[in-house]
Amino acid sequence: MPDTNISIALIQLSCSEDRDANISKTIKHIKDAAQNGAQIILLQELFNTIYFCQTVDEENFNLAQSIPGPLTDQLCELAKELEIVIVAPFFERRAAGIYHNSLVVIDADGTLMGTYRKKHIPDDPGFHEKFYFTPGDDEYRVFDTKYVKIGPLICWDQWYPEAARITALKGAELLVYPTAIGTLPDEDESMGQEFLEAWQVMQRSHAIANGCFVAAVNRTGQENNINFWGHSFVAGPFGQMLVEAGREEEILIKEIDLSNIETQRQEWPFFRDRRIDTYKPILKRFID
Amino acid sequence: MPDTNISIALIQLSCSEDRDANISKTIKHIKDAAQNGAQIILLQELFNTIYFCQTVDEENFNLAQSIPGPLTDQLCELAKELEIVIVAPFFERRAAGIYHNSLVVIDADGTLMGTYRKKHIPDDPGFHEKFYFTPGDDEYRVFDTKYVKIGPLICWDQWYPEAARITALKGAELLVYPTAIGTLPDEDESMGQEFLEAWQVMQRSHAIANGCFVAAVNRTGQENNINFWGHSFVAGPFGQMLVEAGREEEILIKEIDLSNIETQRQEWPFFRDRRIDTYKPILKRFID
Repeated sequence: MPDTNISIALIQLSCSEDRDANISKTIKHIKDAAQNGAQIILLQELFNTIYFCQTVDEENFNLAQSIPGPLTDQLCELAKELEIVIVAPFFERRAAGIYHNSLVVIDADGTLMGTYRKKHIPDDPGFHEKFYFTPGDDEYRVFDTKYVKIGPLICWDQWYPEAARITALKGAELLVYPTAIGTLPDEDESMGQEFLEAWQVMQRSHAIANGCFVAAVNRTGQENNINFWGHSFVAGPFGQMLVEAGREEEILIKEIDLSNIETQRQEWPFFRDRRIDTYKPILKRFID
Repeated sequence: MPDTNISIALIQLSCSEDRDANISKTIKHIKDAAQNGAQIILLQELFNTIYFCQTVDEENFNLAQSIPGPLTDQLCELAKELEIVIVAPFFERRAAGIYHNSLVVIDADGTLMGTYRKKHIPDDPGFHEKFYFTPGDDEYRVFDTKYVKIGPLICWDQWYPEAARITALKGAELLVYPTAIGTLPDEDESMGQEFLEAWQVMQRSHAIANGCFVAAVNRTGQENNINFWGHSFVAGPFGQMLVEAGREEEILIKEIDLSNIETQRQEWPFFRDRRIDTYKPILKRFID
């Protein structure tokens, strides 16, 4: 029998204005996690910068990196050295005037497997993403890494069952959601609790509907007006909360058994009964 | 300002082999609920019979009712008398050899507005529904009743985000899920708890993704091998648990404010950002 257990690490950190310091801190924690057996490293959204979308400022386009580029070179080398898979989300400069909220998936041999570009772009008070990020025009993707088939999505994508479904239908065993979510000063503790619960319920539902694992990695700390709430977690294929961080910096390491996916889908055979003949209206904006 | 508050009642009962007794008991509780201000009455799946799908037996086809028929006549009269909307799910005989797991929606003036026929049909140990129920070939439907736009779905439909999404895009303010779900003797308490939580998380996610209310009505009691777990509930448009029953017979009455739907969708504008240009693969069974 092949070993179906894999160990994943969720790196939940705060960020400063100093990009190099953010990268160094993250790499230190990646090395620690690998030392502790982690095979898959999941970083938070825009991992090497503050969440700069609180302001609308053209200067911030200078924070974007090319893919490939020095940052991915550095991470590929690290992945190869430690024989780990890394999912690294950061601000991508694709071309003059085309910037994305992206991530790269790097295999355990150091290969840059490819990018995923955030499809659903929010724009709300404190979260001015539509100014910075061109919506991804690539497909939903699954990366068949050394240890697990990873279906990466990014933050706002997490509210859309369609994105999770398509990624799961492509064979994802582990959906990952790097995130930057928190509360504004006028949102009190009870609202914060309600938001956090909705955020977790929504992503756990993707695990349930699709019978796969879900890992969400949020940042933490106060940045200007936003208090990022952390609470990164891993859910099992029936939405079970397997492990959950608190509000502070924390590295979650969790071993998961991929054979649970097939068992789950046999016991609760949702894929078998999908009525694909009835779903076409989902392609509409609204049905008046 | 129009009053946007409405009062809904979820009738969570146990059933016996005596159909007339089941109907009488239900009607008694409908009258009580109306007396207590309920305007919308939601009944459980197959409300007038035991959950007969535990066995595979042609005799059970005799339990099916025509629509319209004596049962709907009786309920329409009751709806008119009490000025209430009734959502009544039962086994439908549509034609020789075509039987559905259906529901009718009756408006507060006694009009039979139409039927919805369960689209997603399970088939598992103890739940032999594919033997009895032809999958619904009608559309997902929304009924613009006197008090609220109701989007009815039935039980197994609840595990499919596609069904909730399409019904919400058609304007549903309240998704309703009549249900018959419980545990088998070989499923222990911790499994039962996990199942219950998944069942609630999944349906709360439909409220969140679509910014609408969700009401799920389950039966209760032991019938042969199945212990139906009750726990009917109403969720708000961000998935908040507004009210929840226990495992025993219980009538939940809850006032909800429909204006919360628009507020919710302004604050968390998921509909605005749907990437309908990317969802076509959802029409596939699997993407090899």
